[in-house]
Amino acid sequence: MNTPTFAIAIMAAGKGTRLKSKRPKVLHEIGGKALLLHVIAAARQVVPEENIYVIVGHEAEKVKAAAAHTGVQFVLQAEQRGTGHAIQCVKAHFASNGLAAPEDLLVLSGDVPLITPELISGIRNFHLAEQAAMTILTAVPPDPTGYGRVLRKTPDSPEVTAIVEQKSLAAEQLSAPEINSGIYAFRTAALFAHLDLLKTDNPHGEYYLTDVAAMLVSDGARVVALSTANLQEVLGANTITEMMELDAALRLKTARKLMAQGVTIFRPETCTIDAEVTVEADTVIEPFVQLLGATRIGADCRIRSYSVIQDSKLEDGVLVRHGCVLDNASIGEGALLGPYAHLRPESEIGEGAHIGNFVETKNARIGKGSKANHLTYLGNAEIGSGVNIGAGVITCNYDGVHKHKTTIGDRVFVGSDSTLVAPVTLADGSYVAAASCITEDVPAGALALGRARQVTKEDWAGSRREKQAPRKS
Amino acid sequence: MNTPTFAIAIMAAGKGTRLKSKRPKVLHEIGGKALLLHVIAAARQVVPEENIYVIVGHEAEKVKAAAAHTGVQFVLQAEQRGTGHAIQCVKAHFASNGLAAPEDLLVLSGDVPLITPELISGIRNFHLAEQAAMTILTAVPPDPTGYGRVLRKTPDSPEVTAIVEQKSLAAEQLSAPEINSGIYAFRTAALFAHLDLLKTDNPHGEYYLTDVAAMLVSDGARVVALSTANLQEVLGANTITEMMELDAALRLKTARKLMAQGVTIFRPETCTIDAEVTVEADTVIEPFVQLLGATRIGADCRIRSYSVIQDSKLEDGVLVRHGCVLDNASIGEGALLGPYAHLRPESEIGEGAHIGNFVETKNARIGKGSKANHLTYLGNAEIGSGVNIGAGVITCNYDGVHKHKTTIGDRVFVGSDSTLVAPVTLADGSYVAAASCITEDVPAGALALGRARQVTKEDWAGSRREKQAPRKS
Amino acid sequence: MNTPTFAIAIMAAGKGTRLKSKRPKVLHEIGGKALLLHVIAAARQVVPEENIYVIVGHEAEKVKAAAAHTGVQFVLQAEQRGTGHAIQCVKAHFASNGLAAPEDLLVLSGDVPLITPELISGIRNFHLAEQAAMTILTAVPPDPTGYGRVLRKTPDSPEVTAIVEQKSLAAEQLSAPEINSGIYAFRTAALFAHLDLLKTDNPHGEYYLTDVAAMLVSDGARVVALSTANLQEVLGANTITEMMELDAALRLKTARKLMAQGVTIFRPETCTIDAEVTVEADTVIEPFVQLLGATRIGADCRIRSYSVIQDSKLEDGVLVRHGCVLDNASIGEGALLGPYAHLRPESEIGEGAHIGNFVETKNARIGKGSKANHLTYLGNAEIGSGVNIGAGVITCNYDGVHKHKTTIGDRVFVGSDSTLVAPVTLADGSYVAAASCITEDVPAGALALGRARQVTKEDWAGSRREKQAPRKS
Repeated sequence: MNTPTFAIAIMAAGKGTRLKSKRPKVLHEIGGKALLLHVIAAARQVVPEENIYVIVGHEAEKVKAAAAHTGVQFVLQAEQRGTGHAIQCVKAHFASNGLAAPEDLLVLSGDVPLITPELISGIRNFHLAEQAAMTILTAVPPDPTGYGRVLRKTPDSPEVTAIVEQKSLAAEQLSAPEINSGIYAFRTAALFAHLDLLKTDNPHGEYYLTDVAAMLVSDGARVVALSTANLQEVLGANTITEMMELDAALRLKTARKLMAQGVTIFRPETCTIDAEVTVEADTVIEPFVQLLGATRIGADCRIRSYSVIQDSKLEDGVLVRHGCVLDNASIGEGALLGPYAHLRPESEIGEGAHIGNFVETKNARIGKGSKANHLTYLGNAEIGSGVNIGAGVITCNYDGVHKHKTTIGDRVFVGSDSTLVAPVTLADGSYVAAASCITEDVPAGALALGRARQVTKEDWAGSRREKQAPRKS
Repeated sequence: MNTPTFAIAIMAAGKGTRLKSKRPKVLHEIGGKALLLHVIAAARQVVPEENIYVIVGHEAEKVKAAAAHTGVQFVLQAEQRGTGHAIQCVKAHFASNGLAAPEDLLVLSGDVPLITPELISGIRNFHLAEQAAMTILTAVPPDPTGYGRVLRKTPDSPEVTAIVEQKSLAAEQLSAPEINSGIYAFRTAALFAHLDLLKTDNPHGEYYLTDVAAMLVSDGARVVALSTANLQEVLGANTITEMMELDAALRLKTARKLMAQGVTIFRPETCTIDAEVTVEADTVIEPFVQLLGATRIGADCRIRSYSVIQDSKLEDGVLVRHGCVLDNASIGEGALLGPYAHLRPESEIGEGAHIGNFVETKNARIGKGSKANHLTYLGNAEIGSGVNIGAGVITCNYDGVHKHKTTIGDRVFVGSDSTLVAPVTLADGSYVAAASCITEDVPAGALALGRARQVTKEDWAGSRREKQAPRKS
Repeated sequence: MNTPTFAIAIMAAGKGTRLKSKRPKVLHEIGGKALLLHVIAAARQVVPEENIYVIVGHEAEKVKAAAAHTGVQFVLQAEQRGTGHAIQCVKAHFASNGLAAPEDLLVLSGDVPLITPELISGIRNFHLAEQAAMTILTAVPPDPTGYGRVLRKTPDSPEVTAIVEQKSLAAEQLSAPEINSGIYAFRTAALFAHLDLLKTDNPHGEYYLTDVAAMLVSDGARVVALSTANLQEVLGANTITEMMELDAALRLKTARKLMAQGVTIFRPETCTIDAEVTVEADTVIEPFVQLLGATRIGADCRIRSYSVIQDSKLEDGVLVRHGCVLDNASIGEGALLGPYAHLRPESEIGEGAHIGNFVETKNARIGKGSKANHLTYLGNAEIGSGVNIGAGVITCNYDGVHKHKTTIGDRVFVGSDSTLVAPVTLADGSYVAAASCITEDVPAGALALGRARQVTKEDWAGSRREKQAPRKS
């Protein structure tokens, strides 16, 4: 492997004790995705994944499992002894794996989910252009109290003289407005040369990466600061309440983006729309809708309230009534769903088809214009076009051992309350009488019945009343 | 037709390009109604509909179709060449139809949905009292930058000297606080006399109605301004995000009105209540409820969360549990619905009746105190009082060709999982055994059965196990 | 009974006319509980319930019924003639019941639901430490205009010189910042000595308790003020809109408390969580969830949107999908519910069991790992472990007169669309064929069938078409 010119280290080893949670902090989710995955996604837009080093420690295996699909590298920080120690582990990782260190290294935290690729590449470009040993990203919050402050030689100079913690600020420094975001770029050689000199003579007994700044300054190396106006992008979440606020901000940003593209979203702050979802113009989304994962929605659809659509594709003009739940479904143009239709994975609903209330489909293909409007379960089914499935029809696809398939041709009429015991085929144009249990194939155009004949016993209620207690009102 | 003294022209010909939508801007909806219909509704409270002229152009047929039921007049502006051109079309319309022009004409935009009848009549009255050639409605926003400014002779004078666009403001005019709302009243003769003098020597090459003000002033005609304190009433929506904000404002206004009348609405900002809905005092509405269309709700009802009630009437004391969907239904006093009951059009539920979970009704009358509590479909049904419909009962009302009716008398007991094949009648006091398929009428007091007798094969599981793979856990 | 040293009187006799409601004001609910019950709950943390006197009048019986379970005492104020009159009724109550009056009496209103035990005991302690005849709780709102103002001898003195109504304020008093909260503690002897001297020479012709302050001051008795920084705790709700705002504040407080304990709550402002609900860390609550009553939820659960859980207990690791409604249910570890499962009272779902979509349970015990996944009603049922209940299965537990029980052993397979007519037992390892109506017990390992054999009539559709109109599309 050649020496990479620029790499990114993401600190993801901490526990996040303040969250009171067993889950590592970076695996908490906002916007439908773990904090760490947001940061990795931004980093991958700037450098290839093989140049991203995620430092794991607390619950390392869980963190690695969550991020493995991104292709990033992992560095183990077995004990958590501070930010400086985390980077010592990176240095050791390069050494023990015989890897050349990158020329420059950007260090950021895994808990800043709103960071953007633009900001990361902005730091990199500034750092390289300034030919700095260290570049510190800063921000100017409304109230800097409590934060470490970055002091410049002069207000307009890029050069930094010190990073000073709140409690060490001199009286005249208390109003210094620029805070340390905890995001840095380093000339790797300069960084690594000082890592072993870090001390733990501080209240927490940890190695702090910030201390490198003072060493570099006293060596006469160039330490500079870049200030970002987008404070929110560098904000970490320290409590669950703060994370939930970042989540809401992220969601609203997504909803606003779609509205700017011609999508109508009523009460956008109540909708949960994942960042990757696409929706075409002139679709209307009612309040309290959730569009999740890789969902793609066409134009002129209407998604009514309380519906949740995950990883599904809707063609143009689909009407999803209230309370539908779709997962991995595909819906043809002009189809009509719900209210309260539940489309489970591998449901393919044809153009203009209707799936009505309290109907569940799973691994089911429903042809063009076919209807299943009421209280029905269609599983492992292949259904043609122009079919009418009556109310209460059930495909019996499971015999306790195996799953079997139901095949229904075109223009079939399945009477209400029928039971279709798979494997079974109803050929084109066949007709099943209401309340039939169908266990054998039905030929094209045939009528199948499977029900008992009615018997009526007259004046039964009268004789029964004599024997029994009065009917409950 | 006599000369009307006062008419209103509503501009609704534009495309609303900034919305990125195929739908004409004035047909976008807020508060459950197209923008244009809000404006027409306010205008109709001030003048009769035959004196309201809606100027249509982009997608003219769709706009006319949406507003036709209001009885307003339409004027076609075939090409959209500016606001002045729109009024030229109105003038031409009067001429070519041999109509007398009104003495005064109020001009407003079809995209100011929060305008009130009070504001419209306020402008008219001021305009007439001032005997003005032109009256300009103004407002004072927190930041006037970007808006055209209305300048008065003196701060306290009603008389206007000029309307000046932002980019033409002199340095000392930059802080002029009063903006042009785009709503005007004109002495029609004065307006029409100047319309043909409008020029298109501006960047967009359009005829601007505002230019009439300068002409009138230079003619020495009286041009006055009326300032409104209700900025929101004159705000147009230029983006979907802004429309959604107007929608939320309108909804909250409706919820607050109902609360002031004694209705309890939890989390009112999450409820969607159309403006025409009425609710009596002491009804409780939980969060996330939608009351739509011409819905009327009595006193002492409770509407639980996620329920959507459209064009329905509920008597006093009705309990609607979670997630019910009602459309064109009528519910008797003290009835109990849901959770997850779906009442489709022409459902009439009697006093004290129960319609329970996963039950769908359509074109069904259910008598006093009758119950259908579970997993049932009742379509084209007439059901008496004191009836018990068991779980999973289905009326088979459709044979693939026609719909048929199910008639059930009083005090009938329909056992669970029964199928009623319409047309069929269950007379008073009859009893249907569970799991029966009923195809013939059942006389009063009779018992009907239609099910197969049970057969039991002992030790079947043992012998099956020998033949088959182990059961899936 | 000994003389109690400290008692609390709560005024709950008023009508709350401004609410436009038939319900007495103190019975309006916020945070899932009547206003009065919030106040009583806070008071009971400070003094025993037998020393709490709730003064009732308007709809006295309803108010007593709502509060009776708390064990407080009730005093009837038959006519409502002012706050002074209310305390005259308390005095008369002691006298007519031969009760010794408490040494000190705290008076507060039943419509300040956000009051805390800490504030009440704070007033008591201050009052006793100051050895005051009267202590007035004050607050400093952003704008005191309209409120009665409490004037101190000097700004730093606890001693009060007067309570002055807005309209009686002298010019130099208009900016007095400290308002009378209407909450007082009295030395009872000093209070009772002046009660009969109150006059009704005021516009409403009522006896005002505030007038006692002036009498005490003119007697030279010690009247002091305690100012609270928590304005919200002393705010009464005068309109339904204001009550809804208090409700939202209370809900958000509960959600924030849980988040601080490690619970993730997305869009916390949309969730409705009653104050007594407990949730363990690392459970995730999606938007629009309602957790009500005495619900207890374990760790690592996920409660998806639109679910409503009332008085239920969930063990660790339970997944509740969208739109489930639980009432008085108990759910074992790792169980999986919904979407749209309805668990009614006395549903006990075993470890790892599945209750799927459109399934209703009631008085049903479901064993470990058993599944009922689709369109099923299980009532009065005892079901073993490892059971598979097919789609559309119905327990017929009601014959129109009595409810009967269905008993299902371990590892039973109940085929889809079966009807189980209770009382009936399916023994261990038995198997019911699809679409069977089961009326007799099934022995262990046996197969039961109860369905008609299928009959097929070939080319029926062709001959039917000749006779009938074309099928509806």
